[in-house]
Amino acid sequence: MFRAKLASFSNYSTPVFDCIVKADSNENLLDYPKDLETLIMDVLKKSIKNLCFYPEINAQPLKEELAKFYGLEKENFIIGNGSDQLIQLIIQAACEKDDFIFTLYPSFTMYKITAELFDVNHTFLDITQSWEIDIQEVIKKISQNDKIKVVFIDTPNNPTGIALEYEKIKLIAESFPERLIVIDNAYGEYCDIDYLDLALKNKNVLLLKTFSKIGFAGIRCGYAIANEKIIGNLHKVKPPYNVNALTQQIAITVLKNFNKLKDNINIIKSERLRMTRSLQEFYFILPSQANFISIVDEEADSIFDYLKEKKILVKKFNMGDKKLLRITLGKPNDNDIILENLINYKRGK
Amino acid sequence: MFRAKLASFSNYSTPVFDCIVKADSNENLLDYPKDLETLIMDVLKKSIKNLCFYPEINAQPLKEELAKFYGLEKENFIIGNGSDQLIQLIIQAACEKDDFIFTLYPSFTMYKITAELFDVNHTFLDITQSWEIDIQEVIKKISQNDKIKVVFIDTPNNPTGIALEYEKIKLIAESFPERLIVIDNAYGEYCDIDYLDLALKNKNVLLLKTFSKIGFAGIRCGYAIANEKIIGNLHKVKPPYNVNALTQQIAITVLKNFNKLKDNINIIKSERLRMTRSLQEFYFILPSQANFISIVDEEADSIFDYLKEKKILVKKFNMGDKKLLRITLGKPNDNDIILENLINYKRGK
Repeated sequence: MFRAKLASFSNYSTPVFDCIVKADSNENLLDYPKDLETLIMDVLKKSIKNLCFYPEINAQPLKEELAKFYGLEKENFIIGNGSDQLIQLIIQAACEKDDFIFTLYPSFTMYKITAELFDVNHTFLDITQSWEIDIQEVIKKISQNDKIKVVFIDTPNNPTGIALEYEKIKLIAESFPERLIVIDNAYGEYCDIDYLDLALKNKNVLLLKTFSKIGFAGIRCGYAIANEKIIGNLHKVKPPYNVNALTQQIAITVLKNFNKLKDNINIIKSERLRMTRSLQEFYFILPSQANFISIVDEEADSIFDYLKEKKILVKKFNMGDKKLLRITLGKPNDNDIILENLINYKRGK
Repeated sequence: MFRAKLASFSNYSTPVFDCIVKADSNENLLDYPKDLETLIMDVLKKSIKNLCFYPEINAQPLKEELAKFYGLEKENFIIGNGSDQLIQLIIQAACEKDDFIFTLYPSFTMYKITAELFDVNHTFLDITQSWEIDIQEVIKKISQNDKIKVVFIDTPNNPTGIALEYEKIKLIAESFPERLIVIDNAYGEYCDIDYLDLALKNKNVLLLKTFSKIGFAGIRCGYAIANEKIIGNLHKVKPPYNVNALTQQIAITVLKNFNKLKDNINIIKSERLRMTRSLQEFYFILPSQANFISIVDEEADSIFDYLKEKKILVKKFNMGDKKLLRITLGKPNDNDIILENLINYKRGK
């Protein structure tokens, strides 16, 4: 009754256990400023009576707010039920069965998972040996395969946190004007490089953003920024009413009050520096531009278990001969707990 | 940069204009009972602080509440971002490229739209001539094509409102034990026939439900009920975190307080009888078991325009030589306005 290939598929899940410090999902867990919380409460209160109506079919009011926020037109935006949905729409719109997508390895897992679901193949450049991204290698790899229709570059990369230089992505975009270059900028608010210009100046570049990493993972709202033509094509494969009414309202409120979130973003950035400095004597820490730090360590499994014992949840990645622990930066107190335990581990306590 | 077939696609949209009576989308627009509104407000208030977290990845708490509601197990449920998403997951899980889905014609447009997006073909039985569903014809049509993997039957049907007898669907299900039979029961709360048993007793039947038609279209929440094996396969193609946190909380609250919605459902059912009786002297009205009535009329275009002039929005369907107006039943006062104008139209006013 179901497709044969489903036999090898499983429901995507991620380890969960009762913890005192949750540092596995790259959420921003700092408390909201009180006044922002009140504004959200007010907008929800007003929205309840209208829950009987379908939401705006293409989330136009949210697109208008984004246009104001970025100084662009609403035609430059498409909204997804999380950026996961936009990754799906991109693959659906650009790839025939048996085409390819290109990614770095490692990178955000949903590119590959989604491609597989759509019978689209996946090719990648392994960066686990030096953690440097050799841009000539990237270009060579893409050049060799005409069937690569979409290049996904997450920068800052997940799970390494490494950001690719603006000029390098520009070079990729200019080298392949007929392929869609997706810059997944989910962690953009924590990064010093601004890639927006690339999406505005190149006909083949799309920038992917989300509310998930700045404190609103629960609402499931992602968006893409690109020229009108790319956005128009993605709308052709977008299901109607894909973003619910409350999410639209909250996203609008957050954009209107974005300055109120800046402290929560800046705290994470300074915590990143503090944690990196405190840990680098004990661990090999990748240079992160995101709201997490990643440790490459052969003992990752045993560190994970040690932290689990202390009720600290982080995320573990096995990549061939390399093992990595991704640790979301949270409240300073919680970071202290992680710090203490990571150091204790190395000191053999 | 995009697939060639997109040239013939367009962004799905539906006519909207400023209206005093909105009767186009089969929402239930009756006011919520005050106490239910308060309960929803309370749950939203509590949820705000947790919006920083990703929602439960598979909406387990909502599935548990549904299990209680139906006296089943949580493994019998999958939750979608609207039942639209579940239609997509069904096609993705069951159909290879170039397979077929079967529907009645007319029926809910998303079956066909979604199939096209996935390079899946569509075949149908035309019911526009007699508005009777000849079950032997359905079975013959499905028998003739081995590539039909999914049979979508919306009952009550959209846009006719006609419900298919339990025994007829049972016969379809038993005739094709190797194909997935989807009973889309979006309008089930307004219908006298209960099909749940078919999903429990047959290995190949899935029942599709939604919160959209009982007053909560804005939250985008649909669910499917079937045996564990079907549900397990659909979970394999379900994107993680597909239902946001607030929608999950509201849906749980609605289920826990479902009895408070009964008046709003019963009012619509009695309005359906009143409207049908008052109009049948002037119009050919199909026997609806849903929260709308449908009129078959050659002059549908001109009636639509007449109503539009009066700021009444209904939905118009052109099907070959047949034309249909689908009118959502709303508050009695609003129904009166529609009634008066429909009668005035026929009286040449």
